[in-house]
Amino acid sequence: MRIAVAVRDFKSHMPPTLTGFCNSPDEGKGMARDFRVRWALQEVGLPYVMDFVPMAELKKPAYLARHPFGKIPVYEEDGMVLFETGAIVLCIAARHAGLLPADEKRRMQAIVWMFAALSTVEPPILEREAILYLEQDKPWSEQRMPLVEDRVRDRLRQLAARLGAADWLDGDFTCGDLMTIDVLRRLEGSGVIEEFPNLAAWIARGETRPAFQRALEAQRADWARQQGER
Amino acid sequence: MRIAVAVRDFKSHMPPTLTGFCNSPDEGKGMARDFRVRWALQEVGLPYVMDFVPMAELKKPAYLARHPFGKIPVYEEDGMVLFETGAIVLCIAARHAGLLPADEKRRMQAIVWMFAALSTVEPPILEREAILYLEQDKPWSEQRMPLVEDRVRDRLRQLAARLGAADWLDGDFTCGDLMTIDVLRRLEGSGVIEEFPNLAAWIARGETRPAFQRALEAQRADWARQQGER
Repeated sequence: MRIAVAVRDFKSHMPPTLTGFCNSPDEGKGMARDFRVRWALQEVGLPYVMDFVPMAELKKPAYLARHPFGKIPVYEEDGMVLFETGAIVLCIAARHAGLLPADEKRRMQAIVWMFAALSTVEPPILEREAILYLEQDKPWSEQRMPLVEDRVRDRLRQLAARLGAADWLDGDFTCGDLMTIDVLRRLEGSGVIEEFPNLAAWIARGETRPAFQRALEAQRADWARQQGER
Repeated sequence: MRIAVAVRDFKSHMPPTLTGFCNSPDEGKGMARDFRVRWALQEVGLPYVMDFVPMAELKKPAYLARHPFGKIPVYEEDGMVLFETGAIVLCIAARHAGLLPADEKRRMQAIVWMFAALSTVEPPILEREAILYLEQDKPWSEQRMPLVEDRVRDRLRQLAARLGAADWLDGDFTCGDLMTIDVLRRLEGSGVIEEFPNLAAWIARGETRPAFQRALEAQRADWARQQGER
């Protein structure tokens, strides 16, 4: 019993680690999925260690043993090995103050928004990215794009109606805002967000949070350092 | 204080309510999203009341006030109004024994699988459904289908490798198995699942659970009753 407790205490003092792309194709702009976890870690003030993985390693057995779908990020804290940014951010929010309200009912609302961000808002946005990156050479891509962008708009219209004139989705800033805002950042440059001024203002409100800025600065610095080492 | 406690006790004895489609187009086969919640409720042994909503009501203000994206199901328990099946099943699992392990680390793994089911496994399956139901008249649909089905296969191959010869994803049956199996049921009739015998066996293992059977029986009975009332 003594040993188990000692080991547990020791582990809980090790900073968590997070995998990210080595030489990320977004050039440190925080567009990959490790960013939302870095942002969450900054919100709760938890130091962390980045583990940069070359793209070619992601589909090899050693990495797949940690992440069965061969993606980034993998998060390790206190002996837990987690994947899926929804689960990782929820784990951080549950263990460290700053991202979930104290009241159980309001906590559940924040969790609703985490799932809404990842399983209702993000899928049509990823379909749009698939046209740009996986189907760009297909004869149907140009014709199909407006169809898919309308699916994105449908979701954004509903989200904009729900947010209204509020600063955040449900009172104070929570991991539900963090996740949904980070999902919407994928639309940067598409011109679609600008059609919904209250969503654009909400994203800007998220991006000006000191924790967001610190996370972005760290991401840029990591990328720049890797370029120097090439 | 007395009153608040009394109200709380009273509410907690009210059975939860769940919205579903009135005259569901799947004819009671449990292919809509209320089914996974009904299955979860049967697993934990919690009685519930169905609230059947005509399709035309879903996009009206009264329903949108409960579910900003105008979908089913909406779940109400103890004064909470929740949407997103991931959040609903997680709420049920957190409040009632039977779907989450007691150990914190194993609980987190079940939550990882809930997010994996909804944000990694389901999206390509929904893209496939979009071809069948939203783009069936488009000139590219026939050519695009194999491309999208290969995206589905990529995910299933990785999932099959992770499951291996195990009965369930991580020891005992959890809400992670429930959610992932229910997502894979959407592929019924596509012939894709049959390419992965361990996944097919895993789905069958889920479908033979008494709680699954009770949920399906209730769904069929509700549909038949609605047909009688038309």
